[in-house]
Amino acid sequence: MITLTTDFGLRGPYVGEMKVAMLRINPDARLVDVTHAVTRHSVIEGSFVMEQVVKYSPQGTVHVGVIDPGVGTERRAVVIEGDQWLVVPDNGLATLPLKHLNAKRAWEIDLERIKRFTGWRISSTFHGRDVFGPAGALIDKGVPPEEFANEVPLDSLVKLDIEPRREGDLWSLKVIYIDDFGNVILNLEDYERPKAVELPDFGLKIPYLNTYGQVGSGELLALPGSHDYLEIAVNQGNAGEKLGLKVGDVVRVKLV
Amino acid sequence: MITLTTDFGLRGPYVGEMKVAMLRINPDARLVDVTHAVTRHSVIEGSFVMEQVVKYSPQGTVHVGVIDPGVGTERRAVVIEGDQWLVVPDNGLATLPLKHLNAKRAWEIDLERIKRFTGWRISSTFHGRDVFGPAGALIDKGVPPEEFANEVPLDSLVKLDIEPRREGDLWSLKVIYIDDFGNVILNLEDYERPKAVELPDFGLKIPYLNTYGQVGSGELLALPGSHDYLEIAVNQGNAGEKLGLKVGDVVRVKLV
Amino acid sequence: MITLTTDFGLRGPYVGEMKVAMLRINPDARLVDVTHAVTRHSVIEGSFVMEQVVKYSPQGTVHVGVIDPGVGTERRAVVIEGDQWLVVPDNGLATLPLKHLNAKRAWEIDLERIKRFTGWRISSTFHGRDVFGPAGALIDKGVPPEEFANEVPLDSLVKLDIEPRREGDLWSLKVIYIDDFGNVILNLEDYERPKAVELPDFGLKIPYLNTYGQVGSGELLALPGSHDYLEIAVNQGNAGEKLGLKVGDVVRVKLV
Repeated sequence: MITLTTDFGLRGPYVGEMKVAMLRINPDARLVDVTHAVTRHSVIEGSFVMEQVVKYSPQGTVHVGVIDPGVGTERRAVVIEGDQWLVVPDNGLATLPLKHLNAKRAWEIDLERIKRFTGWRISSTFHGRDVFGPAGALIDKGVPPEEFANEVPLDSLVKLDIEPRREGDLWSLKVIYIDDFGNVILNLEDYERPKAVELPDFGLKIPYLNTYGQVGSGELLALPGSHDYLEIAVNQGNAGEKLGLKVGDVVRVKLV
Repeated sequence: MITLTTDFGLRGPYVGEMKVAMLRINPDARLVDVTHAVTRHSVIEGSFVMEQVVKYSPQGTVHVGVIDPGVGTERRAVVIEGDQWLVVPDNGLATLPLKHLNAKRAWEIDLERIKRFTGWRISSTFHGRDVFGPAGALIDKGVPPEEFANEVPLDSLVKLDIEPRREGDLWSLKVIYIDDFGNVILNLEDYERPKAVELPDFGLKIPYLNTYGQVGSGELLALPGSHDYLEIAVNQGNAGEKLGLKVGDVVRVKLV
Repeated sequence: MITLTTDFGLRGPYVGEMKVAMLRINPDARLVDVTHAVTRHSVIEGSFVMEQVVKYSPQGTVHVGVIDPGVGTERRAVVIEGDQWLVVPDNGLATLPLKHLNAKRAWEIDLERIKRFTGWRISSTFHGRDVFGPAGALIDKGVPPEEFANEVPLDSLVKLDIEPRREGDLWSLKVIYIDDFGNVILNLEDYERPKAVELPDFGLKIPYLNTYGQVGSGELLALPGSHDYLEIAVNQGNAGEKLGLKVGDVVRVKLV
């Protein structure tokens, strides 16, 4: 099984080109579209999406992720092997999925060698079709990465700077996702359930509850989201807009 | 074959999570995405979409539908067996597909027992991944519903109140779908082809014809849609906007 | 393998109906969604999208394309056989894919005969489900087109008028695609790399470079796109809006 997570958009030939290129190399591949509507160039959002999918995927799944603002530059294209596989640009996209993979080895894809498997030239703007898709198709087929990639140290992989930081009882957390309803997801996973959450930058103290409906319409609350991360929401409203937050912003939080 | 109809949206990890969770349980399942862009929480619209797909699906197809505003409340999660299968929240979503299924039995899914098949805890907000998807995957695999669900009477299923009503020659019809072009689909299927349609609430009498192009640009007409229901349209225009209608509204209609 | 390219949109039952109808006829078909969000009725855009997918597809692939403003009129539904197959309305949609197919024969689908394979009546508005999808499913299954279609001369197929025209050193080119970022793709493929591109209608001379980042933010450039066609772009901006261009427009161009 190969999952596909990209920011290619839902119009246009891009998704189709990547999929047929993969099936040309590996006609038996089972392709699973996750989304092709990650916010353009949002590596953090893509990393969050891929993490959630990795958490529920069976062993051996190959995850191809292409959120790749640096395409055509020197950034590496990498394959990461663990209980599952990642095939991604080395720009931090692997950061969150790596928490669940038990990663063992990593390789940098060699563009000259992968071209021998595809038979077409590698464009400077569309490595989903020319590099990542084909590499994922080859791995799923059982071709060892050595045949088209060179091993690199696991600790050389680029990581996003999104670890939660703590000074005393004040957390500095990053917004890693805002869903279609404006619910704000912060990168704090392991914490003791508080009674309330203070947001000192906004002069706010909001209750920590189980579900949206426990506050009045238009009111803020914090809750454990369906993805284990701390979530800030507005019942029947849009917390991202209300607080003026976007993915990548830092929010200071006290659990009280 | 398992079809998927949801309101999860096209961004985000939700669709991907549900699909990989299903393939983890049933690696050979053939998943068919119908749409994940049903209007948020619109059970009527979802019911219409699922009905159309059921009409053209082969026997034995499993249809998983998740338009589920009541997730986390007491609403039941049900499996319905007929010539085809439905796996849906018991909130009326099954109403229109049930017309074509020759339903024989129904079960309420037991959350404790289905958890034994998935191995992960059931969230309070995402039963597509935790309950409906896994149940659909199990049925497609041949696991009998008895193993994770308890039989309930077929006539205990929640039904939408969308039956056409008639007083004399005046029908009261519900809007069950408005397509991207603003064509308004009403829940009247079996009727004798009229010459015209009167809409007394709007003071209008419009011709009943075969295709949009038979009236001038911007003019209203009624016609048999491609889904057998009575349809109100504006040639090269938007009937929903022109008449101020939305899904769930009642329209009074005389066929003349 | 069967690819699907349509303008049905991402809501609604249409895509699902077509897919289940195909799988009912050919349960082993491998369906690959390219896009269902081609600009409504834009035959040129659909032709461009299908061309790109054909270029990377394996031999024998069946491409079903339904951008069909003339549905219900006398326009023919056709099957084209080459190294790959096309199943499309005969409205010019095949024009660009045909450049890569090595086409040998064409057939007009006989609605009466294809109905014998599906078993349902053919609507006047939804030939994706009733004609094109089923025909593609039958071909992928190995049913010869003779069984549901009549051979027609290859040169009777409708072609879009989008050939590049040249008078002296002045090209008249058509806009065949504008991507989500406003990059404008012109139908010129084989040309010697110029230093710059003049657009006399706009009084502009813009550099021809390799990538967007080689000009300042908001500045125009020309470049070889990832699809081999001449592309006009604005670095971090929208060339289509800046120049007021849309698909189908003619742009006069000098390569200098």
